[in-house]
Amino acid sequence: MNSFHFTVTHRSQTSKARLGKLSTPHGVVDTPAFIFCATKAAIKGATSHNMRQENTQIILSNTYHLMLQPGPEIVEKMGGLHSFMGWDGPMLTDSGGFQIFSLGHGSVAEEVKGRRQSSRPKSLLKINEEGATFKSYIDGKRHTLTPEKSIQVQRALGADLIVVLDECTPFHVDKSYTERSMHMSHRWAARSLKEFQKRADGRQALYGITQGGVYPDLRRNSADFVNSLPFFGHAVGGSLGANKTQMAEVVEMAMEPLDPSRPVHLLGVGGVSDIFYGVKQGIDTFDCVHPTRLARHGGALVPPSLWESLGEDPQGREHMNLRNARFRDDPRPIDETCGCQTCQTLSRGYIHHLLKARELLAMHALTLHNVHFMNRLLAAIRQAIAVDQLEQEKKKWLI
Amino acid sequence: MNSFHFTVTHRSQTSKARLGKLSTPHGVVDTPAFIFCATKAAIKGATSHNMRQENTQIILSNTYHLMLQPGPEIVEKMGGLHSFMGWDGPMLTDSGGFQIFSLGHGSVAEEVKGRRQSSRPKSLLKINEEGATFKSYIDGKRHTLTPEKSIQVQRALGADLIVVLDECTPFHVDKSYTERSMHMSHRWAARSLKEFQKRADGRQALYGITQGGVYPDLRRNSADFVNSLPFFGHAVGGSLGANKTQMAEVVEMAMEPLDPSRPVHLLGVGGVSDIFYGVKQGIDTFDCVHPTRLARHGGALVPPSLWESLGEDPQGREHMNLRNARFRDDPRPIDETCGCQTCQTLSRGYIHHLLKARELLAMHALTLHNVHFMNRLLAAIRQAIAVDQLEQEKKKWLI
Repeated sequence: MNSFHFTVTHRSQTSKARLGKLSTPHGVVDTPAFIFCATKAAIKGATSHNMRQENTQIILSNTYHLMLQPGPEIVEKMGGLHSFMGWDGPMLTDSGGFQIFSLGHGSVAEEVKGRRQSSRPKSLLKINEEGATFKSYIDGKRHTLTPEKSIQVQRALGADLIVVLDECTPFHVDKSYTERSMHMSHRWAARSLKEFQKRADGRQALYGITQGGVYPDLRRNSADFVNSLPFFGHAVGGSLGANKTQMAEVVEMAMEPLDPSRPVHLLGVGGVSDIFYGVKQGIDTFDCVHPTRLARHGGALVPPSLWESLGEDPQGREHMNLRNARFRDDPRPIDETCGCQTCQTLSRGYIHHLLKARELLAMHALTLHNVHFMNRLLAAIRQAIAVDQLEQEKKKWLI
Repeated sequence: MNSFHFTVTHRSQTSKARLGKLSTPHGVVDTPAFIFCATKAAIKGATSHNMRQENTQIILSNTYHLMLQPGPEIVEKMGGLHSFMGWDGPMLTDSGGFQIFSLGHGSVAEEVKGRRQSSRPKSLLKINEEGATFKSYIDGKRHTLTPEKSIQVQRALGADLIVVLDECTPFHVDKSYTERSMHMSHRWAARSLKEFQKRADGRQALYGITQGGVYPDLRRNSADFVNSLPFFGHAVGGSLGANKTQMAEVVEMAMEPLDPSRPVHLLGVGGVSDIFYGVKQGIDTFDCVHPTRLARHGGALVPPSLWESLGEDPQGREHMNLRNARFRDDPRPIDETCGCQTCQTLSRGYIHHLLKARELLAMHALTLHNVHFMNRLLAAIRQAIAVDQLEQEKKKWLI
């Protein structure tokens, strides 16, 4: 069995961007890389085989969903997540905290990016030093998630990369709350690590999470803390601010003091502009439900050149809405420059029809395309970093 | 371009079962064969590529659905059904009449098999010599389908095999209604043929439909009629009776007088026992939504040997309900003897989880399995006919 290690193979001369090789027992991930969300141990609309065909390196599953259904004991009995879902590549699970703390039934990403100023979800019953008590979204039963429990569940699930439990604070909390929460998350991280080390057998590697919200001194304090513990990698957590500009500032201040020898994951971020920004700050991996969720709503990710080929302004347009009636008799593929299974075989007109007719195949077709797009984007970013042309490459993907 | 022909390559010594080669411009179908329903130009839960991988020879689409959405002019502009949906094999469309006459929002198959004694659907506004007027299930707009219009629409859709418009009578009508309806359907068939011959360019072949309900003299009269016209093939239409026993009798009386040189299709029938019965009566092709619809409800078609391997009585059980809690931690594939993509990669436990979690992938996985099962069943039937062992083969599939 291969062991875990992370090697930086190239550093940009003009930014903090870097190329790396993240080795796991299930294979090597070339970084920067995008991690797709197989929330309930399934990519919505694509098989593990499809994901491989569209050049996917790594996927993740959500501990929160799997601990409630089918339960970690079932997944463990079935040989762990890789065997359960037929995915033989690298895989990550989160701690489960994100959903408990941030998710009612809405979008997690909106919350963490500060676009929604909601308070706690009603399903969250209690947070204290021990952990968090919440009601299951499936049957309303009470569950308690502690740092130790999260690691135990993630151990049973068996992903390669696992993550410590942290408190995800709502966006609107003040510095005093953020600081208290950060310290509790640090104590939880230490407890997570202790539980992890009890049975560390080389099959999994643990990520710590850097906290501190939008406050530079807290971000530095938190970086010092995670650097001091033997985590394999770091995730950038906590509030990233109220908008994209603030997010960029917060990511920069969070990244600067982190140990550069460890891989860094940016949680729940996956817009094209966010990825370019993150890569320039040295982020190695990203995850977001956006590409696959967008697909289920009829949206195909496309580069700006596509709008130009239609004689239209590409400004701010990252996707094409195939529900639009203009596509009903359009025999062209979504993107003639795309090598995905969908663009090789199906037309915009047919996908438009599938969406209108509410055929399952529409989601499948668009999911394959968006997965391929993200993998193609990240491959292009890696190539550009290698030749120090990231700014030039960015112009091909963002206008 | 290949032309249409049908060659009987072997006749059973012990029944009317036969092997054939049905040649079309898009390839040859080895008969007996099962035709899968891509109702709205899409198999629900599988791509055209998936269908090929699971050994599918031929599929059909429904003229009724496609004439309403996206409309024949769109499909024609997109290069016809084959190009539109990316299926390069043989294909059939029905006339559209079946849905107009028999379908409210319930099951067509239940109606034609006499299991539902409903009267006409509310959406059917008028039937007269000219044709049928009905309301669209999508937007309530009035449409009139005539024999000529059905052929025109099917010409635009561009399937290889097309079918004349007939009146599908409700089950409970008396002999006098059945006879009058039969004669009108004969006149419609002659009009369909005339319209077809106006532009017969060798790209499509037309099937007539034999009528006559459950009445032997009418069945003979109708067979004489369709035999007398230059149809490429025949479909067995009209009421098949109130139950499986009567259906068997009606199929026998309908088949006996039909021209044996033409291929015969049995409309809307696809249970395992029905297929064995039909094959023994000389039926060459079958279609039914059952295998793919069952998949979407969590059912996997399995042979009796599977229940025996579980130590259970296989009597009357043609499928396994993967929603059943007994499968939640079952690491075995649905059927260890099955070669489908699903049985090669996924377990009963995982599919159970996907169903409980309402993941799209559940429908996909079960659809692939059921498609493979039907193709495997028909291949086994063809092999058995070749060596005159159909009765022995039947015991492996039905108890």
